[in-house]
Amino acid sequence: MQILQVGVLGGSGFTGLELLRCLRGHPGVRVVFATARQPDAVGTRRFPGPWCTSEESLAYSVDWVFSCLPHGESARWVTAWADRGVRVIDLSGDFRFPTPELYTAWYGIPHPCPERLAEAVLVLPEWNAEAARDRRIMANPGCYPTAVWLAVLPAVRRGLVDTRMIIIDAKSGVTGAGRPPTERTHFVNVQENFTVYSAGRRHRHVGEIEYYLETWTRTPSRILFTAGLLPVRRGLMVTVYAALRGGATARTVWSCLVEAYAGRPFVRVRPLGEVPTLHDVVGTNRCDVGVVEADEAGWVVLVAALDNLLKGAGGQAVQTMNLWMGWDETLGLPVEGGDA
Amino acid sequence: MQILQVGVLGGSGFTGLELLRCLRGHPGVRVVFATARQPDAVGTRRFPGPWCTSEESLAYSVDWVFSCLPHGESARWVTAWADRGVRVIDLSGDFRFPTPELYTAWYGIPHPCPERLAEAVLVLPEWNAEAARDRRIMANPGCYPTAVWLAVLPAVRRGLVDTRMIIIDAKSGVTGAGRPPTERTHFVNVQENFTVYSAGRRHRHVGEIEYYLETWTRTPSRILFTAGLLPVRRGLMVTVYAALRGGATARTVWSCLVEAYAGRPFVRVRPLGEVPTLHDVVGTNRCDVGVVEADEAGWVVLVAALDNLLKGAGGQAVQTMNLWMGWDETLGLPVEGGDA
Amino acid sequence: MQILQVGVLGGSGFTGLELLRCLRGHPGVRVVFATARQPDAVGTRRFPGPWCTSEESLAYSVDWVFSCLPHGESARWVTAWADRGVRVIDLSGDFRFPTPELYTAWYGIPHPCPERLAEAVLVLPEWNAEAARDRRIMANPGCYPTAVWLAVLPAVRRGLVDTRMIIIDAKSGVTGAGRPPTERTHFVNVQENFTVYSAGRRHRHVGEIEYYLETWTRTPSRILFTAGLLPVRRGLMVTVYAALRGGATARTVWSCLVEAYAGRPFVRVRPLGEVPTLHDVVGTNRCDVGVVEADEAGWVVLVAALDNLLKGAGGQAVQTMNLWMGWDETLGLPVEGGDA
Amino acid sequence: MQILQVGVLGGSGFTGLELLRCLRGHPGVRVVFATARQPDAVGTRRFPGPWCTSEESLAYSVDWVFSCLPHGESARWVTAWADRGVRVIDLSGDFRFPTPELYTAWYGIPHPCPERLAEAVLVLPEWNAEAARDRRIMANPGCYPTAVWLAVLPAVRRGLVDTRMIIIDAKSGVTGAGRPPTERTHFVNVQENFTVYSAGRRHRHVGEIEYYLETWTRTPSRILFTAGLLPVRRGLMVTVYAALRGGATARTVWSCLVEAYAGRPFVRVRPLGEVPTLHDVVGTNRCDVGVVEADEAGWVVLVAALDNLLKGAGGQAVQTMNLWMGWDETLGLPVEGGDA
Repeated sequence: MQILQVGVLGGSGFTGLELLRCLRGHPGVRVVFATARQPDAVGTRRFPGPWCTSEESLAYSVDWVFSCLPHGESARWVTAWADRGVRVIDLSGDFRFPTPELYTAWYGIPHPCPERLAEAVLVLPEWNAEAARDRRIMANPGCYPTAVWLAVLPAVRRGLVDTRMIIIDAKSGVTGAGRPPTERTHFVNVQENFTVYSAGRRHRHVGEIEYYLETWTRTPSRILFTAGLLPVRRGLMVTVYAALRGGATARTVWSCLVEAYAGRPFVRVRPLGEVPTLHDVVGTNRCDVGVVEADEAGWVVLVAALDNLLKGAGGQAVQTMNLWMGWDETLGLPVEGGDA
Repeated sequence: MQILQVGVLGGSGFTGLELLRCLRGHPGVRVVFATARQPDAVGTRRFPGPWCTSEESLAYSVDWVFSCLPHGESARWVTAWADRGVRVIDLSGDFRFPTPELYTAWYGIPHPCPERLAEAVLVLPEWNAEAARDRRIMANPGCYPTAVWLAVLPAVRRGLVDTRMIIIDAKSGVTGAGRPPTERTHFVNVQENFTVYSAGRRHRHVGEIEYYLETWTRTPSRILFTAGLLPVRRGLMVTVYAALRGGATARTVWSCLVEAYAGRPFVRVRPLGEVPTLHDVVGTNRCDVGVVEADEAGWVVLVAALDNLLKGAGGQAVQTMNLWMGWDETLGLPVEGGDA
Repeated sequence: MQILQVGVLGGSGFTGLELLRCLRGHPGVRVVFATARQPDAVGTRRFPGPWCTSEESLAYSVDWVFSCLPHGESARWVTAWADRGVRVIDLSGDFRFPTPELYTAWYGIPHPCPERLAEAVLVLPEWNAEAARDRRIMANPGCYPTAVWLAVLPAVRRGLVDTRMIIIDAKSGVTGAGRPPTERTHFVNVQENFTVYSAGRRHRHVGEIEYYLETWTRTPSRILFTAGLLPVRRGLMVTVYAALRGGATARTVWSCLVEAYAGRPFVRVRPLGEVPTLHDVVGTNRCDVGVVEADEAGWVVLVAALDNLLKGAGGQAVQTMNLWMGWDETLGLPVEGGDA
Repeated sequence: MQILQVGVLGGSGFTGLELLRCLRGHPGVRVVFATARQPDAVGTRRFPGPWCTSEESLAYSVDWVFSCLPHGESARWVTAWADRGVRVIDLSGDFRFPTPELYTAWYGIPHPCPERLAEAVLVLPEWNAEAARDRRIMANPGCYPTAVWLAVLPAVRRGLVDTRMIIIDAKSGVTGAGRPPTERTHFVNVQENFTVYSAGRRHRHVGEIEYYLETWTRTPSRILFTAGLLPVRRGLMVTVYAALRGGATARTVWSCLVEAYAGRPFVRVRPLGEVPTLHDVVGTNRCDVGVVEADEAGWVVLVAALDNLLKGAGGQAVQTMNLWMGWDETLGLPVEGGDA
């Protein structure tokens, strides 16, 4: 097996740390460098080094680069590495939209290098892995979009649900709020609390979810999206409410999901009527999906859960690389997990 | 001030314990007895005694009785006390529905005393306190219906939202799951987890919410309702998604709420666009309500939070008594609370 | 009842907020001002205002001032108010030691106004409340010393335990670590963790505990003291291990505690062999103490628990004021609490 | 590599489940059966089957058996398998003491098969792995004794600390309290709480700790031992306080530990003055040990942390098997872990 030389930009945040954990356990990869403003004890435990700045990292020679830098900052280094002929997976939001207008509409800033957007493609491994074939820059989707798309795409593509209004009630653990200490992540403010931090159509992921739902299924789509902060460290759940169309039932939707994900190691469709919990998926790279019947009301409820740092971020990036390389999709990635 | 002599049936569950706490601090009330299969240390700390069985309690003479017994068991004792000319507030589900058919449809068992249903009335203090005037038996609403109704009733009554499909995503703390230890309440299963335990149209509160929404506003109503278990001890939140009607906007809905609850001590409408957290309400008898704009999508998002043991149970029962007695609504009830 | 006009310096930290909560519910007190660099939403909910800087506060006229400012900064304002003839309770460490040498030894900085130390007295309400009679400046003890002293002073005074080596294993909730967000208080670092943050003889409270143990009982004392961070918001527990002396047994020690605290509302000695939990005391101003037998080994184990923000800080300050004023010791202070 | 055929008795408790996780990932092992009164969903996820009763399991042919049955019940099946010439590791307390008298003194019941005790040996892999050479029955030590011994044995053997009174303050997560739901493990009773559940000399592990401390080092030993329940799922910490002897210092003790564990993969001695947290070890089979200086007081403080289900139970059992088989000690066992 060829050993891929890889570098990690922004290795000291929660996403970077988790990505480094996956890469360290990956038999086909050698991590050549990781960057951080200043790597701390946790970082060096995950990756002994060398650690350097993003600037300094350019001196190394690698085959792949993963960027866990913040949006706005990421694009610059992603393109610098792409210019060296290196394949880059960007976990930030910088290359998720195809146009600078969309980027600015949702991120509130001008895109750092609008002329490069055309080189990139957003990859959801279960959906369009092959689109990455000939691209230098691959964008990893956001954690919420990943869960929502995996839950609804099969049914939307088949016209089973009405996309004119899909309601999404999402909840995530505190690692989703980032590693720098803030008032919002102070233990005393999180413990014994639940906080809706974004509702309606304010969250950046609204744009991302709608854009690809429309693009991939050619169906005009509109969503409401609420995101809440759970007093847990890891894990993310989305509950999706959609009106049924054209005689579809919960069972039709469920069968469609079962079929869509047959043979996929990282999406597990639960028996009809059963929904996943965070414990089911935390510590794994899986997204578990459940379908609940509400046929009498003409709607269906879908519940998807994943680990926001694995399938929602670092794990999915490794999965994307595995597929691109033609390797076993699960290399370096936990399929079974956690519980207590 | 007249001192009311009261008794508490089922005083050793979470609801009973919290009710006893409120009653102990209430200047107009003396607790004459509490019942429990066997009162434990926590119970006797809340209420020194006498503790007895429900059977034995009938030997006491009181003015009011509160029942925190489980549904199915409660009705028998509620009617026994009503027959003695005592006013009874039933916190169980036994007297929430007006017909035995509805009761059986949602609780799955025959009603223990169907002929007595006509004597009872369900009281939501902010909505129909006067309906209790001449009734012996008052039913306290469920915790979820309380939050949902307080959030949506004003707008529904004014025809601002479409009741043909209202989506409700609800979350509650573990005290909502009861005091007897079960696998579901084991610390190891709850900590670092979030569990959807009822979705679609399965939860008993679906029937309760729809029935009174229709009855009180004469508007056919249908909901989807998901309930999840949060890894917290107390607190409940509902996020309600409703389509706007007849030119209404989030601001219209918000103004309508502000007006409806002007002067009410236990409902606080947050500034438009702001939503409550559990910390805002835990330890108080308040329900805080927030309105989020999604006008461009033609929908509105409402968020309501309350303490499931206070405004969602024992506190609301005391509030109902206060109003019936013509006392200050807040006697014995915390208006401000908690945080850390 | 005379209404005391009081001011609070440093009202926006956890201690200040809790003190403001006690003072607001106190029938003999009116809060005239509170200071904060910038008061936030939580602060204004606890105290509507006026909020000002410590500098600006000097324009107000009050009878008592409480300082919750950090040590090093507190002394300056404490003395400024004492100079105005106002009685001041300092909750910081600035006036706990009688000499600048001791202060510097444990706080690592020169004392801001060494010449004023002689005016102050440290007050443990159950022990030396009368010592405060004629003092302008009263120091509130630290949270750990309060628990340790309440547990061991009666036995030490009576010579029942050997003070040449007392082992103290202490644990506290995250409010003890302060309100500004730090890596140490980040939810992700606290949840599912337990951290010993000070062991041996490094913690500042070692000096405080030993000094007054010696001074008050005229017995040379030496301790080991370990402090750990619990993944809870509030509550503190100390487990104290001491060798028995002169034929004493756990029962002798226990009787001595029972006698010492007879009639004291805020210290509850548990039955011999039973120890308190955090739930027993959080939300109250009590310190509960338990004694465990290990007579065969010639040692005794004492366990004391309190709410670090009440009996360990703001509550004890109010208790001190109550006693000084000749009021009921419990005014404005919760005797019973919490559980779920 | 020879593939060992193994069976697991009592596979559905927390310990059994964790053991099954280790065995499943172990390249040298095939799990032939697991027993449970009734295996549940979590169990079958860890081990697909066959599941059977302990009685039925005797029909299988295996090389090794691990027993995670409760004490009192375990001995019977351990001996039944030993009689078949199978090597057995007993994780219960049944074979930890060499005499029935000691067993009865600490477990309060007669030993189920006292005549078989002589066949067994207690194995602490870092200390006496070779003692297991020719034994059929190996007892796994308790979780607390494992942590305590690893922290103090090297210093005790060298006479660096005084064993006449060693103080041990221990804390453990809720998996240590077992999987059946009880009041003690109810989320509402654990969350935001800390409970000392055993203090002085009452805990069964007191006898185990003292007996082997004396036996292995030929030094009369006496301890005080307090055990507390942390609101976390996994992890255990012991803080050990011991008087120094014969001119020893914290540094001497630390050097002695460093030397004792040089080359051992599962004990990590932290730099002098630094102590481990639960996050450092949860998810690993390591026990991390730290030494804190208190030389001026003539004492030393040792802190040891481990994962109670791995190094404290199932992991250590696998480690014992690895050593017996002459395999790499770390096969199937995580050396690095967790954090967020």
